[in-house]
Amino acid sequence: MEDWGKKSLELHRKKQGKISIQSRVPLRNKDDLSTAYTPGVAAVASLVANDPKECYQYTMKSHSVAIVSDGTAVLGLGNIGPFGALPVMEGKAILLKKFAGIDAFPLCVNVHTPDEIIAFCKAIEPTFGAIMLEDIAAPACVEIERRLEKELNIPVFHDDQHGTAIVVAAALINVSRLQKRALSTYKVVISGTGAAGSSVCRMLKAIGITQIRAYNKLGVVSTKKYSDYDFVVRELLDEQIIQPFDQEDSLQALLTNQDVFIGVSAPNIVREEMVRQMAPHPIIFAMANPSPEIDPHLAKKANAFIVGTGRSDYPNQINNVLIFPGLMKGALKAKAQSITMDMKIAAAKALAYLIQEEELSVEYIVPNPFDLRVSKVVSNAVRKAYLEKK
Amino acid sequence: MEDWGKKSLELHRKKQGKISIQSRVPLRNKDDLSTAYTPGVAAVASLVANDPKECYQYTMKSHSVAIVSDGTAVLGLGNIGPFGALPVMEGKAILLKKFAGIDAFPLCVNVHTPDEIIAFCKAIEPTFGAIMLEDIAAPACVEIERRLEKELNIPVFHDDQHGTAIVVAAALINVSRLQKRALSTYKVVISGTGAAGSSVCRMLKAIGITQIRAYNKLGVVSTKKYSDYDFVVRELLDEQIIQPFDQEDSLQALLTNQDVFIGVSAPNIVREEMVRQMAPHPIIFAMANPSPEIDPHLAKKANAFIVGTGRSDYPNQINNVLIFPGLMKGALKAKAQSITMDMKIAAAKALAYLIQEEELSVEYIVPNPFDLRVSKVVSNAVRKAYLEKK
Repeated sequence: MEDWGKKSLELHRKKQGKISIQSRVPLRNKDDLSTAYTPGVAAVASLVANDPKECYQYTMKSHSVAIVSDGTAVLGLGNIGPFGALPVMEGKAILLKKFAGIDAFPLCVNVHTPDEIIAFCKAIEPTFGAIMLEDIAAPACVEIERRLEKELNIPVFHDDQHGTAIVVAAALINVSRLQKRALSTYKVVISGTGAAGSSVCRMLKAIGITQIRAYNKLGVVSTKKYSDYDFVVRELLDEQIIQPFDQEDSLQALLTNQDVFIGVSAPNIVREEMVRQMAPHPIIFAMANPSPEIDPHLAKKANAFIVGTGRSDYPNQINNVLIFPGLMKGALKAKAQSITMDMKIAAAKALAYLIQEEELSVEYIVPNPFDLRVSKVVSNAVRKAYLEKK
Repeated sequence: MEDWGKKSLELHRKKQGKISIQSRVPLRNKDDLSTAYTPGVAAVASLVANDPKECYQYTMKSHSVAIVSDGTAVLGLGNIGPFGALPVMEGKAILLKKFAGIDAFPLCVNVHTPDEIIAFCKAIEPTFGAIMLEDIAAPACVEIERRLEKELNIPVFHDDQHGTAIVVAAALINVSRLQKRALSTYKVVISGTGAAGSSVCRMLKAIGITQIRAYNKLGVVSTKKYSDYDFVVRELLDEQIIQPFDQEDSLQALLTNQDVFIGVSAPNIVREEMVRQMAPHPIIFAMANPSPEIDPHLAKKANAFIVGTGRSDYPNQINNVLIFPGLMKGALKAKAQSITMDMKIAAAKALAYLIQEEELSVEYIVPNPFDLRVSKVVSNAVRKAYLEKK
């Protein structure tokens, strides 16, 4: 296997990071300076000051996104802080450029309380058309996103919560198409109830899946431990999105006779025999990063019908890069003020139906991240979904 | 005269602003993704998390600058807010790119108290190699810069204070070279004691000018009005940088027999006869924006020896674009933690001495903004000044 870490270190050292700024206008002489800058720019400044909506037409706002992270939950590395988050967020920025033509700028911040991060995002609102939150630990990230959703006039999207969730929803839509079986009949177990897991639960509910059990650091999610859970898990129980499992506190028992395992948690917690005890033709999405909940080859050996992971070296890569570029582009194009569940469902469906029914296979239930049609269909669907409900 | 406002509106509408993001690394296939992003980037994230100084080598930090403005003092437009400031800050960003190859990003913020702006700048510190404050009203801007100077580990530079001041210092150095007269003998009157004016006073003092009188919105600066001044003016009096003038409260009286008028204030406050009452061969730098304190043609008619303005359509354009790109580049190259008076003086001298003595003339005392040697000599001088004192 390639030593990606070594190659990445070399690349970053040589290039000193991954992004740079480019001028969209010429700046060759005094006339250019007078047009792009003073004295001409005073007319533009006055215009947009009088009507800030005009920023979408006269400034970078319509194509610019802030990627905000405090570095408390970076990749599989955990709380490594804002400096450690910077190379990752630069990566997100170039993905947004590559796949959606969006000009995104990473802002790795040295503040960590919800109040501080919310104040920060509100402060930068004039400059950007949207904000992507990244790698902020749960449950703070949930509180931050919800409050910003109310308090900001531009959309906010926490990729770690919803990006993965939307791709999982798309994948399950395609599983149901491939198996010609109604979504409502699937019995699902989710491992991980943090940022990603809780959003997966809500997305699945939104596309019609009602039988959802969950597992987290405290074991099987059951009513007995209600008082030990954070507000995110309690809400999922209160709203009956997760069905509590009170019989036995083991993942093996939880998985027995279930159709789908969705892991956004920790490496190697699922063993072969657990897969064998699931319902026939089980579906395994093992997305822990960098090592999945079960090695996909082992899952296959244990008769899993479809296996997906977050990795690029296996089929069915459940990668949120399939969603966030197109979704942000659609939100920007619609000049959306928020990202609604309708927009997320539209994104999941657009992603799923990009694959024709006859193309679907156990190794092809989600499009390839480098399929350049993806961001276009997602963006159009998201824009349409927002404008229809506006 | 060209209608720059109209041309500028057309340009901005067509281009939707002036900046975009560019990737510095290839992103063509899965291997590129694995190197630039996951899984490879985890090695880079770990490295810089363990030693944040490595951000200068492995991330964009070494070449990135935040341009922070709350829009309270934009160009000649005043307090038009962060939306109105955005096109101006985008302009600064492309100037930094054009003249110094720096990747600067505008952050127009919706917060206005010193505490909030300081908190904001501290929050973004991990991402940037330096911060440029722009178009923040005095006296708040002075407090903000001073506190950030102490509290940040990256340099902060308020261009409106020091950019103009450094170019004025360079221009006066060249006036003294052209006139073969010691700087210490010049009698100077400054109109405007806000952000720019107060910094001009300190810069002039630093290059050896001791006879400085001032004028502001309250009239001639005199000891009688001490209690009416903000802390910025009081300090200039306390430190004997400004000589109070207690005889008569008129700009005409203040200017009589003085050598130099420096205006960073309001249009058309200097009349022809005032220039005639100055010492022989008077120097007029009338930099109010967009209309100068006196029309340069009138000043010439009244026997001014040298006239400079902020405008590009007259000789001797005192434009801070001559300073901030090179100065920021020098500070970044030195990985400076602050911008010292030594660095500013080095910048002024480097700018001045780029013009050979035999090239100097009444119409050529500062280099042309499009002279591409400028940012190099300024950058090198600033870097050297920092490293020598480190």
